[in-house]
Amino acid sequence: MRTYPDCYPCFMRQALEASRTVGATQEEQLHLLRKVMQQLLRLDTDCTPPEIGQAVHRMVRAQTGVDDPYFQLKAYSTERALALYPRLQRMVREAKDPFTCAVRLAIAGNIIDFAQANTTDKVNSLWPYVEETLRQPFTVDHTQALSEALSTSREVLFLADNAGETVFDRILIENIEIPTRYVVKGGPTINDAVADDARQAGIHRIAEVVSSGSDAPGTLLKDCSPEFLHEFRKASVIIAKGQGNYETLSDIRAPIFFLLKIKCPVIAKDMRLGTGSIICKRSEHYFTRP
Amino acid sequence: MRTYPDCYPCFMRQALEASRTVGATQEEQLHLLRKVMQQLLRLDTDCTPPEIGQAVHRMVRAQTGVDDPYFQLKAYSTERALALYPRLQRMVREAKDPFTCAVRLAIAGNIIDFAQANTTDKVNSLWPYVEETLRQPFTVDHTQALSEALSTSREVLFLADNAGETVFDRILIENIEIPTRYVVKGGPTINDAVADDARQAGIHRIAEVVSSGSDAPGTLLKDCSPEFLHEFRKASVIIAKGQGNYETLSDIRAPIFFLLKIKCPVIAKDMRLGTGSIICKRSEHYFTRP
Repeated sequence: MRTYPDCYPCFMRQALEASRTVGATQEEQLHLLRKVMQQLLRLDTDCTPPEIGQAVHRMVRAQTGVDDPYFQLKAYSTERALALYPRLQRMVREAKDPFTCAVRLAIAGNIIDFAQANTTDKVNSLWPYVEETLRQPFTVDHTQALSEALSTSREVLFLADNAGETVFDRILIENIEIPTRYVVKGGPTINDAVADDARQAGIHRIAEVVSSGSDAPGTLLKDCSPEFLHEFRKASVIIAKGQGNYETLSDIRAPIFFLLKIKCPVIAKDMRLGTGSIICKRSEHYFTRP
Repeated sequence: MRTYPDCYPCFMRQALEASRTVGATQEEQLHLLRKVMQQLLRLDTDCTPPEIGQAVHRMVRAQTGVDDPYFQLKAYSTERALALYPRLQRMVREAKDPFTCAVRLAIAGNIIDFAQANTTDKVNSLWPYVEETLRQPFTVDHTQALSEALSTSREVLFLADNAGETVFDRILIENIEIPTRYVVKGGPTINDAVADDARQAGIHRIAEVVSSGSDAPGTLLKDCSPEFLHEFRKASVIIAKGQGNYETLSDIRAPIFFLLKIKCPVIAKDMRLGTGSIICKRSEHYFTRP
């Protein structure tokens, strides 16, 4: 998915919010914004939003001198999600259709996204937001097809999104019967999960945690490690969580299921669906790998 | 009031929305955004938001080739407000305190502000939004001081804000007993009222409509005409409507009363008040002109 004009003011807001999480002064914020605009002017308008996001958040880290601006918010999000973990497990156990319930929970966890405004409020009162998502009907529901793809595969490549959301992913992975390789980012970017965030959520107990090798807030194949690309190219089924993975992989021919909550009007427009929709979607470029 | 970092993404959103009102393609929108970023990088960060807004919206007009991008939305806003006019008059007539009611209505009209997102929705269902503002208590209430200042003055300089809001201003002017000079912008900028917009609202029947000589979305004194400055400097009482006039005049020594609804978080922060507040505030730099 290419970058839309609305992404530009959004990147500037993201940069501002990131710089504030590390206590940048107003002068520093303004200086950063100027650097971000210079960066935006240099970048090609044809690339995907996470490609620009990668450059912008690298700039944020360079200008603030903080390697992982969302370090504390990520740890806090995971903590809050872990507090719900027993309740989430019980929900799935008691559900009529445990797999669909687990898919829904994995999508509900996708609200923990600090690229969006007001996410701290959501993390502070996580349960009501989760409940809201659980009550919502799917806007696109390919859960059955996902279940079938999993039943005929030997393993699944699971492209993670954010810290805290990882705990909800753990619930889904516990309800998948084949081995899971859980792909986190190669370095900090916004609140995307890196290996330590996945460990804090306990993912390493049930899946192999591997890195994409990239610090783009999505899966930007040209920036990923050869090891990851090897896994990606041989995977017979891929679960891709969140908006960033949709933005970078929606045009790629691969056996992907996208699981996300649409939080941004630009993605809503691109998918021709409403903001707030919950989605379990088999890629339009899906194919069955032998 | 100086420009805050949050103003930068907001200017870009404003430019985008303005270009869409005249049907710019996505390519044109991107091209405009690049021009706006170049402009923002050239401008001094110490100036007021309307000074940057002036430059940005001049850029929008130059790039789109449309002199008055909000021409139709302004006419529509005025039409919708005029449809309420008899009801507004009746409200004031039947009020226990007609003057305070008229001040409240003038502030309620300030919701018609296309520098903010989603204003078309508000104009489409104007009455509920007006009622909401009427039910709200003042956050700053210097109505009594305003009434007294008007009672000891020979005339009032009324700095207008937006088209449509003009109809609500007309109600207030009808309840002021001294002659009013109604100051509109010297040229189109966002949906700020120019002379024709004031005429459409019928202001010319009850006040002298004059121009500030400037196309800044506020009252940027250094950009105003000598004629306006002469009036401004001799005025014994000035009513300044809306956020743009607050942003440009809050630090100026003059006998000003600011009437506005706070719609933007940056102004809320500057005034140390909440977004949504309704304000009738005597300037902190107020003085009585002999």
